[in-house]
Amino acid sequence: MTLKDTLWEKINQKTKPPGSLGTLEWLAVQIGLIQQSLTPVLRNPHIVVFAGDHGIAEEGISAYPQEVTHQMVKNFLSGGAAINVFCNLHKINLCIIDAGVNYDFSKDTLKPLDYKISKGTRSFLSSKAMSTSELEQSIKSGGEIVEQITSRECNVIGFGEMGIGNTSAASMLMSYICGLPLEQCVGRGTGLNDAQLLHKLNILRQAQTFHGEITHPLEILQTFGGFEMALMCGAFLRAFEKNMVILIDGFVASSVFLVAHRIQPRIMENAIFCHLSSEQGHALMLDYLQAKPLLQLQLRLGEGTGCALAYPIIESAVAFLNEMASFSEAGISAKH
Amino acid sequence: MTLKDTLWEKINQKTKPPGSLGTLEWLAVQIGLIQQSLTPVLRNPHIVVFAGDHGIAEEGISAYPQEVTHQMVKNFLSGGAAINVFCNLHKINLCIIDAGVNYDFSKDTLKPLDYKISKGTRSFLSSKAMSTSELEQSIKSGGEIVEQITSRECNVIGFGEMGIGNTSAASMLMSYICGLPLEQCVGRGTGLNDAQLLHKLNILRQAQTFHGEITHPLEILQTFGGFEMALMCGAFLRAFEKNMVILIDGFVASSVFLVAHRIQPRIMENAIFCHLSSEQGHALMLDYLQAKPLLQLQLRLGEGTGCALAYPIIESAVAFLNEMASFSEAGISAKH
Repeated sequence: MTLKDTLWEKINQKTKPPGSLGTLEWLAVQIGLIQQSLTPVLRNPHIVVFAGDHGIAEEGISAYPQEVTHQMVKNFLSGGAAINVFCNLHKINLCIIDAGVNYDFSKDTLKPLDYKISKGTRSFLSSKAMSTSELEQSIKSGGEIVEQITSRECNVIGFGEMGIGNTSAASMLMSYICGLPLEQCVGRGTGLNDAQLLHKLNILRQAQTFHGEITHPLEILQTFGGFEMALMCGAFLRAFEKNMVILIDGFVASSVFLVAHRIQPRIMENAIFCHLSSEQGHALMLDYLQAKPLLQLQLRLGEGTGCALAYPIIESAVAFLNEMASFSEAGISAKH
Repeated sequence: MTLKDTLWEKINQKTKPPGSLGTLEWLAVQIGLIQQSLTPVLRNPHIVVFAGDHGIAEEGISAYPQEVTHQMVKNFLSGGAAINVFCNLHKINLCIIDAGVNYDFSKDTLKPLDYKISKGTRSFLSSKAMSTSELEQSIKSGGEIVEQITSRECNVIGFGEMGIGNTSAASMLMSYICGLPLEQCVGRGTGLNDAQLLHKLNILRQAQTFHGEITHPLEILQTFGGFEMALMCGAFLRAFEKNMVILIDGFVASSVFLVAHRIQPRIMENAIFCHLSSEQGHALMLDYLQAKPLLQLQLRLGEGTGCALAYPIIESAVAFLNEMASFSEAGISAKH
């Protein structure tokens, strides 16, 4: 009997009608298979938030000015953001990474972990967002961050992001990787109105015309991605190599996951899709991956907030597998 | 400005794009309005599981034999059931109530709280499930239980149930209160096959023909309900009087809520619908109430498990309202 069969047998002997814990049963099997164990354990959960700035932000494609990226990083560091609140409440460790923020944190009291590639990418309207060596350094840094976290006995990790302009970058990744027209990939981000949304779409169409066809996933990432996204890509790939349980957040994190998945399709085995974002495009991304999200709460915040909110559900799945009594242990009669 | 407006203003000043926490924002407003506070607090959460047996179970309408009710109560008491695992994990107090189980717990070491009306209802195929005085005692007992729990400073409560046969009773409540034909209200419960489902539907149709039209909600409850359901109805009504946050579980708990809601429509203000069950009929019940469920995880276990799994989301909603920084506190730039 395969481990998968044995996991299902274990679940079906729990004191509940077969299948009655729905999605939690599938989650328990997935995590059992990742850890190759009938008694999987989630240890020392971490969420890593990567922050970076985007050259494309100068084109007015976001509802907020670029300085909000560094202002929000400061907010993460002082504990005032949504991701802080949710990580505190659900006992998740939080790491804040400067992947390429257009700000000098060196004189601040509270500093993000410094993996800055440069002070923001170039605008992909007229050049690649980053050089090949910047891309390589980003992928390497993302891997190193995960490596350090795994050395703390962590085996479950989620990735969030902060970067004014990064839903534009994510839409480009989505359009190129999924082969979907831009209008299906572009949304309101942090809150564009109709006219601003049309402007965003026009800018991204210009960029698509300028760059033409690109097929290699890393070249797509290099052309359109932010440094926070490139580090996250490296982090995804290393988290898979380390066989971690990997939590996927919303639109931007999923767009990076598309790149990682194109490079390493088996990463799906380790991936838990935490929620369906209300950013237009996310549902199509998840369809493309044939992924089912755990939560549907109309979130569209990023920062890894969907991962933090889904984490108690994931813990619950592991806990029922390990802790519930079986029918025979509890002396309960079988079905008719 | 109304409290509702002030709550929204507070939420819109948090360091996130307006609306980006989706459903959590509505939850925060609801709980603020219940407690008439800009800084609501969830205190000492409880889940109460009511257990009772059903005369209708002798008609073979459940996948499990009646003795599973008392066997599962023992399992709750020894900590082996799903609701135990989830309440432990999410720090929720759990109370197990014998409302009318067909078993004598008096010689057991671990005993449920004794509110037994009698050893199960009569079969509603040929009589009312309970007498008027049994109904009255049930409603009173449910109220007393809530009264005792509120004396422990609890202000958030969820109700679960255990009772072989109780999805049949719930389908009857639903059909009578929502005015829907039985085939839209009857489902597979703990796991009936097609032939068994047809048998269940036929039995319930016979009961409907026997009893004919009934319009008063308490008479509907008296005619078809279990003691666990009647106590739960009393508990719902008292929890509303005590102005608690009330967590609604799945198909059976929602059917009881329909009765409470018919008696006291304002209970909607205090009700949080924790999940959409995969038991056929639950979606239509929620539509009838114009209620949106928090989770959609294909659960169909009862016991209050949906309440326990949703609780961390509800806690998260209150936490962001109280703990997140505002734009001005964090020194973050406004939208363009």
